[in-house]
Amino acid sequence: MVPQWIIEKKRDGHVLTEEEIRFFINGYTNGTLPDYQMSAMAMAIYLKGMTPGETAVLTDAMMRSGAMVDTSAISMPKVDKHSTGGIGDKVSLILAPLAACAGLAVPMISGRGLGITGGTLDKLESIPGFNVNLSEEDFIATVQKCGFSMIGQTGEIAPADKKLYALRDVTGTVSSIPLITASIMCKKMAEGIDSLVLDVKWGTGAFMRTVEDATALAESMVRVGKAMNKGMVALITDMNQPLGHTAGNALEIIESLECLQGQHADGDLMNITLALTSEMLVLGKKAQTAEEARRILLGHIESGAAFEKFKEMAELQNADVSFLDDVGKLPQASLVRDFPAPSSGTLAGVDAESIGRAVLVLGGGRQKTDDRIDYAVGTSELAKIGEHVEAGQPLVRVHANSEEKLAQAMAYIEKAFTLADESTAAPTPIVARITG
Amino acid sequence: MVPQWIIEKKRDGHVLTEEEIRFFINGYTNGTLPDYQMSAMAMAIYLKGMTPGETAVLTDAMMRSGAMVDTSAISMPKVDKHSTGGIGDKVSLILAPLAACAGLAVPMISGRGLGITGGTLDKLESIPGFNVNLSEEDFIATVQKCGFSMIGQTGEIAPADKKLYALRDVTGTVSSIPLITASIMCKKMAEGIDSLVLDVKWGTGAFMRTVEDATALAESMVRVGKAMNKGMVALITDMNQPLGHTAGNALEIIESLECLQGQHADGDLMNITLALTSEMLVLGKKAQTAEEARRILLGHIESGAAFEKFKEMAELQNADVSFLDDVGKLPQASLVRDFPAPSSGTLAGVDAESIGRAVLVLGGGRQKTDDRIDYAVGTSELAKIGEHVEAGQPLVRVHANSEEKLAQAMAYIEKAFTLADESTAAPTPIVARITG
Repeated sequence: MVPQWIIEKKRDGHVLTEEEIRFFINGYTNGTLPDYQMSAMAMAIYLKGMTPGETAVLTDAMMRSGAMVDTSAISMPKVDKHSTGGIGDKVSLILAPLAACAGLAVPMISGRGLGITGGTLDKLESIPGFNVNLSEEDFIATVQKCGFSMIGQTGEIAPADKKLYALRDVTGTVSSIPLITASIMCKKMAEGIDSLVLDVKWGTGAFMRTVEDATALAESMVRVGKAMNKGMVALITDMNQPLGHTAGNALEIIESLECLQGQHADGDLMNITLALTSEMLVLGKKAQTAEEARRILLGHIESGAAFEKFKEMAELQNADVSFLDDVGKLPQASLVRDFPAPSSGTLAGVDAESIGRAVLVLGGGRQKTDDRIDYAVGTSELAKIGEHVEAGQPLVRVHANSEEKLAQAMAYIEKAFTLADESTAAPTPIVARITG
Repeated sequence: MVPQWIIEKKRDGHVLTEEEIRFFINGYTNGTLPDYQMSAMAMAIYLKGMTPGETAVLTDAMMRSGAMVDTSAISMPKVDKHSTGGIGDKVSLILAPLAACAGLAVPMISGRGLGITGGTLDKLESIPGFNVNLSEEDFIATVQKCGFSMIGQTGEIAPADKKLYALRDVTGTVSSIPLITASIMCKKMAEGIDSLVLDVKWGTGAFMRTVEDATALAESMVRVGKAMNKGMVALITDMNQPLGHTAGNALEIIESLECLQGQHADGDLMNITLALTSEMLVLGKKAQTAEEARRILLGHIESGAAFEKFKEMAELQNADVSFLDDVGKLPQASLVRDFPAPSSGTLAGVDAESIGRAVLVLGGGRQKTDDRIDYAVGTSELAKIGEHVEAGQPLVRVHANSEEKLAQAMAYIEKAFTLADESTAAPTPIVARITG
């Protein structure tokens, strides 16, 4: 096969065969097919698209480019969740122990934060001793023992994706639905799961700015997962303001533990978390309906089992769990400053990107992949859209470790809030459910 | 400036600024901008196009990437012709001495053949002694002395084009009108000419298969040339059969010399050559109208001046001109075989690509850039579309230097001809004239 003929075929809007896609991805992975042919192909895919069948083959080829987790030793139904990412998104930390309480296995391989988006691994590492670098053997054993485990990559999963992602980043080919689908799904499918629930976010703080774009991506991922014989559901959720009340590593751990113990029950974070976990229970046949699943999950929160499950996992991953019983011992920032409402009114907007940038300049995120993270810093007590506030009432609390960084963060914080005279409704947390 | 932002801008169909295009081409030429960003950009240009203004800036940026010929010492109007290439196309060999006879300067920098397309330099080198590698100084002196010179590149003209052309060839981005336009025009504009006549071919033996595609390319090139303050005319000419009666290096020199001496006056080759040369004379103000120009040119053929002009140039470029007075001394093939018409009828098709492939397998062309050429081989006495032929009458004469290659060539020759019962009109040599 001749690479440029395959590029030309896609350029002209034709459907590539399975052999052509595998030839291209295999050649790119082993280096016989150069970057400049892959980038021309990526641009052709960006502009001409791919059918669901092509996207599924692309995903499979990228998945098979590297290591796959062998989960055959796990006896429970293996179900995971993936989120397209947003500010304050700590859903995994609550969802995984809840799902494990209900009898599912959640072999969760997560990433680190980069830019304004936080990473689950960084949040976990704010707990002293927590080890996210388990061997695959220990990972599987942890899942089998307590129902879930949260780690970084073990073997080299999907090297084709690693190479292609870096290339797309510098060639204007990031925001392509088939390419995003394959990039996300090839890594999740390499986890050896039976089913996957997707949290596809839309809004000003999300990669997908409109419900339509988020829905198109969700439909593409659900179709690919189903083509690979996985149980699939996606929820389209709101990211027009940060999720929950905190952003920053230790602060998000604290909020997650509060949720696992029954607090914030009516907020957007628990609303979305319970909906996603319920979908996992139904896919894993631990409940007949989402309503039944929700009752089961609320029971595990009320009984204390959910919080205990998190501690059990943390202890198996070497964490000092005394920090979970007394979160006051977790890293704390030296400067804590409230940002007061400049006038009275209804909170009409909380720009997630501005909050994310504030956390980044505070040191809670990475500008470059080798930056060190300050676990203590971030924001908390965030007011939410639709709330009525009086002038001078705090809209958010900023946790900083230097006056200079605090000032930099405050410049973003000031731009984050929009107050209106008329009443504004809180955003709908879940706007759609995609099943195929 | 950030390369991927410029790629994204073109990807989304926007018009690039002059600064953005120059930044991209300069970076690509000096190696700070990698192949993989250029290929993504090329694919975006392929699929989203460029405005005439963008194409003109791209052409200028590519022209300025390397050396430009200083023609200021030449006193006559400097006019050249460029053809998009076809089988049997020896127009330059006849046109340049004719234009020189009429008082124009033709500083013609030509290429070598590759694949089924022959090259003017290879044809000239079939004349013993002919030197196509003049220094720029000798090139200019030759043009000033006898009105024309035919050489290969002197300095490194348009290195950006050389790099980009090689990249387009392997990334499925060859057949893009703005990219073809810039590639052709940047090299011609670097010749330091005042005006340019374009021979844009259409048909089964041409790069552009339809009149519409050829017209679109011609319009694009004429617009770019005019934007660069050059006199411009393009003719859309027929390439549904080989041009003239010969294909192959020495064989084409012989046919060209015959034309310069008044033979083949009614054929497609002289029809197109006289039309193109007439346009040059009008652009160079050596004639008021094409009709007047044509009379002038026919006079130079009749008087013998045209043939003498070719010999004058050849002598200045070190050729042994005794070979031009006695073409029987030029390289001759050891095997000459006629291909007879299998039945009687009207010749309805002569596939130029098949004839080109026959010449290639005979050794008259290059499969790779470093292949050696056999100047003697090729085809002659080619019958033309519209001619009535009797069964057994020769349709073409094949000149070969081995029985094995002759047999390979004959396999292509057999496929080249289509005979029909009903009468078929000869193709119209010139179907359109493009002036802007």
